[in-house]
Formats: sequence, structure tokens, C-alpha cells
Amino acid sequence: MEEWYAEIITIGNEILSGKTINTNASHIARRLISIGFTIRRITVVMDELEEIKEIFKETISRNPNLIVSTGGLGPTYDDKTSEGISLAINRPLELNQKAYQMIVEKYSRLGIQLTEERVKMAKMPRGSIAVENDVGIAPGIYVKYEDIEILATPGVPREMENVLENFLSKHLTNRPNKKYHEESFIIRGVMESTIAPYVKQLVKKYDLYIKTHPKGKELENPVLEIQIAGSSISEDEIERKIKECKKELIDIGVRLGGLVEEVK
Amino acid sequence: MEEWYAEIITIGNEILSGKTINTNASHIARRLISIGFTIRRITVVMDELEEIKEIFKETISRNPNLIVSTGGLGPTYDDKTSEGISLAINRPLELNQKAYQMIVEKYSRLGIQLTEERVKMAKMPRGSIAVENDVGIAPGIYVKYEDIEILATPGVPREMENVLENFLSKHLTNRPNKKYHEESFIIRGVMESTIAPYVKQLVKKYDLYIKTHPKGKELENPVLEIQIAGSSISEDEIERKIKECKKELIDIGVRLGGLVEEVK
Repeated sequence: MEEWYAEIITIGNEILSGKTINTNASHIARRLISIGFTIRRITVVMDELEEIKEIFKETISRNPNLIVSTGGLGPTYDDKTSEGISLAINRPLELNQKAYQMIVEKYSRLGIQLTEERVKMAKMPRGSIAVENDVGIAPGIYVKYEDIEILATPGVPREMENVLENFLSKHLTNRPNKKYHEESFIIRGVMESTIAPYVKQLVKKYDLYIKTHPKGKELENPVLEIQIAGSSISEDEIERKIKECKKELIDIGVRLGGLVEEVK
Repeated sequence: MEEWYAEIITIGNEILSGKTINTNASHIARRLISIGFTIRRITVVMDELEEIKEIFKETISRNPNLIVSTGGLGPTYDDKTSEGISLAINRPLELNQKAYQMIVEKYSRLGIQLTEERVKMAKMPRGSIAVENDVGIAPGIYVKYEDIEILATPGVPREMENVLENFLSKHLTNRPNKKYHEESFIIRGVMESTIAPYVKQLVKKYDLYIKTHPKGKELENPVLEIQIAGSSISEDEIERKIKECKKELIDIGVRLGGLVEEVK
């Protein structure tokens, strides 16, 4: 069977200095594997334009199906991912109208003026699609170069996760030819930190992607949306596996005093 | 001032699959920075001979002062780091006599027979130096290629840490031209998990390498050796900073009910 292969690029001096552990790369890896990709390489580079350009060029030269990067999309002078990609694929950096609208709308809702630094987040390589960021300002950048799909996500973990989910559900065009299945449900009354060790065990046991999305307030009113996803050559197999895992996790949730609801 | 620059290579499918978070790379980064290196890149590759060979070749081509890898040194079929380095630097893989002695001695002490798989851990590129591993079997591999120093450490975190310390104290020949200072002391009666959050704060505050080495038993009889290290252009500055940090940490240890001892 054809291998669908992805690479992950993390941009950020805080990872290279060992101050921040690269949990973003692990999240992206698990999520991409759940839809059938193999991850062949993860690279961490500095917030330097030349380094970012080089790593995208090198990664492209290995011809993966998908490249996902994290970091370097913000408004500050050391956020250089967009420019780095633009140099690597030799397309001019220009104002992306859709991204500009997204940014204008977010700041105007907050009554904050646009500045050059804020507009910078709407500058993308020509031909890019701005990917929705529902929890922060900087949109993701989705651009195709030859047959390679490239997604740049922000470095803040919850923004990276949100942009990645939006990309997978709305934009990714070429998917691994595996059967993908996903189920979600809601547990009320169980704290994310309480269920976390059980989730960890089930991830190991079933080899699936399981993600708890907190929707309420951890202490006063915990509400968790739990997403279970995976892929396999056999549709039956992956559906059965996910349902079994879901049942086990629901039983655990109920035992921990939770109230379970299906997601509509 | 001349930049002393290092790269880190992590070898292991468990990191690429997102199942294990790359804490080894963070540890190596912090430790190398403490003696004055800059880390320019961290790369994670698969346990595949071709990948390992390629990443060492690529990394060497960027001409860093030092390359430290972690993973792939064990006795199993998928431990291919030694062979990968040997192909990358074009030196035959051969039985390293010193490594062989280390391994023979460890197994014979345990009354365990040598097998082909066990002897495999003594096979290193010609010209390598076997680096002591005091907490496991597989020795580290230290080899010089042109002006580049290459160290391969095991993937088990405490073995990686031990081999790295042995390398830094006994083998590394070319050091960054910064003044390095290190102090250690012992705290009895404080659990590592109790002091951990304070250590984390001090690492941030002082930007130093602080490592707690548990020497006793966490629950019944906790004994911690605490190491504080860092480097700077100014000898006075780094010594003063480390002494200040040490004093603050000793005060915290005493407040937590600990008994402090100097390391002889």
C-alpha cells in the first residue's frame, strides 16, 4: 500500500534551548497518524529567516505529501514563518484578503486599532488559503507547492490544535487512502485532570487518537468533549475499535461520577 | 565572539509517533547550553539505517562543533545508530575493545552469557572511544570526524544523562571559550517531587542548568544531589550567579525540612 508521509517542523528558540518541551510536535504527530499518515521526520529550527527558509526547502526536497509547521506566525519581529515559506517556495509575500478580513474583524470586535504588526499576520505567500483560528488571532497558512500540501500553524498549543482541526476538516485535499473514523461525546461533571490518566492508558491500549476538549470550567463546572479518532485499511475494524474504546471510556466517565451525552 | 554550535539528533519511532515526548532532546539542549553551546537544530528520525545515515551526513555537512544523538544503541535489530554513523562518516564498523570489555564485565557480573546481540553493542565506527555508561549496558560512542565531535548516547533517559555527563567530564576536547562553573550539594530528607516546582522556578529565574540527582529512596529516605551549572564570558559573573542560585535553593531545601551537606 502507498505510504502517505508527513513531516513536522517546529520553529522556536524556546524549544532549542530546552526550556519548552516539544509537545506540539507530539500532538501533530498523533493527530496525523490517526488519519493514516506516517511521520518520517520532526525538525526544530531557530526563529531565523534563513533557517526557516532552508528547512522548508530541505523538507520539500524530500517530497512528503504533507508538511505541518508550528510556531512563528505571530505579530512580533521574530515571527518569520510566513516569509520563510514564501522564500522557500519562491512566491511573493502579499496581503491575503481573507486573512486580513479575519484579523480586522477580531480586532474591531475588541475595539483595538490595527497596526503594521497586526496586519503582518495577514501576509502570506501568494496562493495561500487562510485557515480559521477560532481561539486566537493569527490564521494558519495553507499553501500547495507542486503536490505537497503545506500547513503553518501558530505555536500556542491550543491555537495550533484549533488551526490543525480546521485544516483537517475543511481544507486538506489529499488524504491517505485509509478508512478514517471519528466519534465524539460529552462528559459533564468530571475534571479533565481526573480522567487524564485513564485516557493515557486507553491511548496505549487501543493505539487511537483520543483528545479531551474542555468546554466548561475545570473546577466549578467541568464539561469535556471527548474525541476518538483513527484509521485503518478496514472500515469495519476501525469503527469497531473506536466504538469499543468509546464504550470503555464512557464506563470510566460514569464511574467517576460523570453524565454522558452524545454530540449532536 | 565565536559561536560554538551543536545539533541534537533523536532516533526513534516512538517520538515520531507522538507516543513519547522528546524530553531527551530538551535535557541535552539545556546541558549543552550550560557549558556555552548554542543549539541550532534538533532532528527526530526513524529507526531506519538509511535515515540515520542521512541525518548524520546532513548534520555533518552543516559543520557544527558538536553533534549529540540519543537512541538506537541497544542490542535489538532496530538499534542502528552505530551502523548509521559508520556509513555516514565512511569508517568500518568494528569491535571496539574497550566497549567489549565494559560489556563483558557487566554481563559476567550478572552471570549472563554473551550473545551476538549483546556483542553488537560493542561494535563502533573505527576510531571511536567507548563512553562509560554507569547505569546501563550500552556504552556511548564518541568519534571525531574532521573537526566535528560526535557523541551517540542511549535512548533511556537516565542512561543518556549518565553517558552525557561522562562525556562532558572525561572526553569532550574542544569546549566553548566561555567560563564554565558548576557547584553541587546534597539535601537529605526532601523528596525530589517536593522540590521540583521550586527548581523549575529557579531555572527560569537564573537561566542556569539545575539537575536533581536522586541518590536515596524517594519515599523512605530521600537524598538528592543537586547540580547547578552555567557559563558566561565573565568568570566572576557566572560564579556569583551560581552561588546566589545555590543559596536560594539551599534556603528552600531547609524550609522544606531538609538537611544540607556540601559535596566533597
